[in-house]
Amino acid sequence: MSRAGEGHRVTMREVAQRAGVSVTTVSHVVNHKTEARIGPEARERVRQAVEELGYRPNALAKTLVQGTSPFIGLVADSIASTPFAGQIVHGAQEEAWRHGHVLLVTNTEGNQEAEERAIAMMLQYNVRGILYSRWYHREVEVPPALGETDSVLVNCYGRVGAGPAAVVPDEVDGGRRAAEILLRRGHRRIAFINTTTASPARSGRLQGYRQALAGAGIPVDEDLILEARPDQEGGYGIADDLLATGATGVCCHNDRMAMGLYDTIKERGLSIPQDLSVVGFDNQEVIAGHLHPSLSTVALPHYEMGAAGVRVLLGLQEVPAGGILTVPCPPVERDSVDGAAAPPTG
Amino acid sequence: MSRAGEGHRVTMREVAQRAGVSVTTVSHVVNHKTEARIGPEARERVRQAVEELGYRPNALAKTLVQGTSPFIGLVADSIASTPFAGQIVHGAQEEAWRHGHVLLVTNTEGNQEAEERAIAMMLQYNVRGILYSRWYHREVEVPPALGETDSVLVNCYGRVGAGPAAVVPDEVDGGRRAAEILLRRGHRRIAFINTTTASPARSGRLQGYRQALAGAGIPVDEDLILEARPDQEGGYGIADDLLATGATGVCCHNDRMAMGLYDTIKERGLSIPQDLSVVGFDNQEVIAGHLHPSLSTVALPHYEMGAAGVRVLLGLQEVPAGGILTVPCPPVERDSVDGAAAPPTG
Repeated sequence: MSRAGEGHRVTMREVAQRAGVSVTTVSHVVNHKTEARIGPEARERVRQAVEELGYRPNALAKTLVQGTSPFIGLVADSIASTPFAGQIVHGAQEEAWRHGHVLLVTNTEGNQEAEERAIAMMLQYNVRGILYSRWYHREVEVPPALGETDSVLVNCYGRVGAGPAAVVPDEVDGGRRAAEILLRRGHRRIAFINTTTASPARSGRLQGYRQALAGAGIPVDEDLILEARPDQEGGYGIADDLLATGATGVCCHNDRMAMGLYDTIKERGLSIPQDLSVVGFDNQEVIAGHLHPSLSTVALPHYEMGAAGVRVLLGLQEVPAGGILTVPCPPVERDSVDGAAAPPTG
Repeated sequence: MSRAGEGHRVTMREVAQRAGVSVTTVSHVVNHKTEARIGPEARERVRQAVEELGYRPNALAKTLVQGTSPFIGLVADSIASTPFAGQIVHGAQEEAWRHGHVLLVTNTEGNQEAEERAIAMMLQYNVRGILYSRWYHREVEVPPALGETDSVLVNCYGRVGAGPAAVVPDEVDGGRRAAEILLRRGHRRIAFINTTTASPARSGRLQGYRQALAGAGIPVDEDLILEARPDQEGGYGIADDLLATGATGVCCHNDRMAMGLYDTIKERGLSIPQDLSVVGFDNQEVIAGHLHPSLSTVALPHYEMGAAGVRVLLGLQEVPAGGILTVPCPPVERDSVDGAAAPPTG
């Protein structure tokens, strides 16, 4: 390769020298100013010099001249410790590129100072707008600096009636679909292990569960609604209470909870799905498909929310009145659900 | 807030109008040109106008004038589907900020066209340099475009004797430390389940295992060295072969493999660690600490590699002759290792 040495950036001046033309001529050719009067021969010499030297136009300069920025900022709070933020990044990036924009990602890991710096930096780089995201769906205090540019909240929302548009998962839809996986296989006594943490997931999924049972003509038995920590330890500790309900199937708040529940159910000599059918939530990459048996669950649409966030920011997708766009949670059926049999006893 | 409306960027001209001074005066004040002769009163009026209008200096303009870029590019291949790439991003970002740089992250999810676009975009934005990373440690074909700027390979390396410096995990060290967790508890018959995938992890960790046994004066029994797919399914399928060896402890190629092994060992009515001690590798967030029992393992230093990559790029950390900097893999001891007892029988 006849590139210039490492770390040296080829300038327009060098291209001009090599081609034996003026810098202005080079500028006209590389910026495709067809109105400029430049002969085909000079044009060809410039093209050749650009090729030989490996010249690349300076996108920053172009940005300044045009007065518009190709950057879209994305503030994420947890790329390093959960897979979910990464999926938002992935969806936002692919959609941004599709529309000629570049994603400027910063990861704050929940550090407020880092967040303030990130937003200030994005504003200084004159971003087209900012996506402000959370790895789990929740209400947020919208940072005032977001008001200085266009912004969209992803997987979070501000106080009702104010602030930027929000793109969030349809938790009610997700809860309904989770219960329906069990209803379709004939289960009628279905437990619901909710999280102990107040959140839209906690209230929304339970509402969806109630809707699904109502739709199937099954009255809700409040004894079937339990609570546990939203992780493996929570699922592991709930078995006594769960088995006491006589449920034949159970919807867990998330896949991690289902993973812990698997351990304790198996330790009691019971089988999934023969003795108990289990449905998770999240479709978490390293867990859901790899448990024994593989876990039927409902997917959180992180990729889709990232992509939709970009479309809303660029004015390519409408947001309903109220300012909140909900994205469906599709069911993913695997091997943890069987036809309903007699309830297990611990 | 007395900010300008959404999406409108306050200009230096507006600040000048509000302050009743020239644009040049504003420029001198906001760029801290102390040599310019501006009276304290005008200076104060500018500061006040900046405050009232929410003016932010345009960092892109500054970048062009200074001719240096604050950006460091990071090409990641798998933010959305593994937690590891996110940890590299996190380490690189914190280290970049510490030194006044901003990380421009792109995620390619293994798509070569996306990678080429990402690097071209970074070069056009005149990055200070590029970190090129892989989520699992391997040899790569270094993209020629990386030669156009300073670059550092993170968690990957090019052909020997050419290309950019590389920062990689010390696989031999990691393999040694994994085996030592078992040796310290008196195990002498230690199996090693390697991955079937050729990689530096495959050869390096086995070498470390051999070193650890040699250090403890234990001859290596080749029958104890098995192979399986590096995931839950691989660990699940290896139990017959493993139990046939009479091992009292086992080092698994990764935590996912250990997770699958847990399932099959328990299904046989055996206990971890009473009947078999298990050590993983990776210290994978959602798995290692949450298995029953929690998994003793060795951590892959993704965060540290991201941070070291930035230091190497900025010339703040030396790389040994040969161009490869190795980062240690620290052991993380939990509850899956017991003192050595009689070997289990399946």
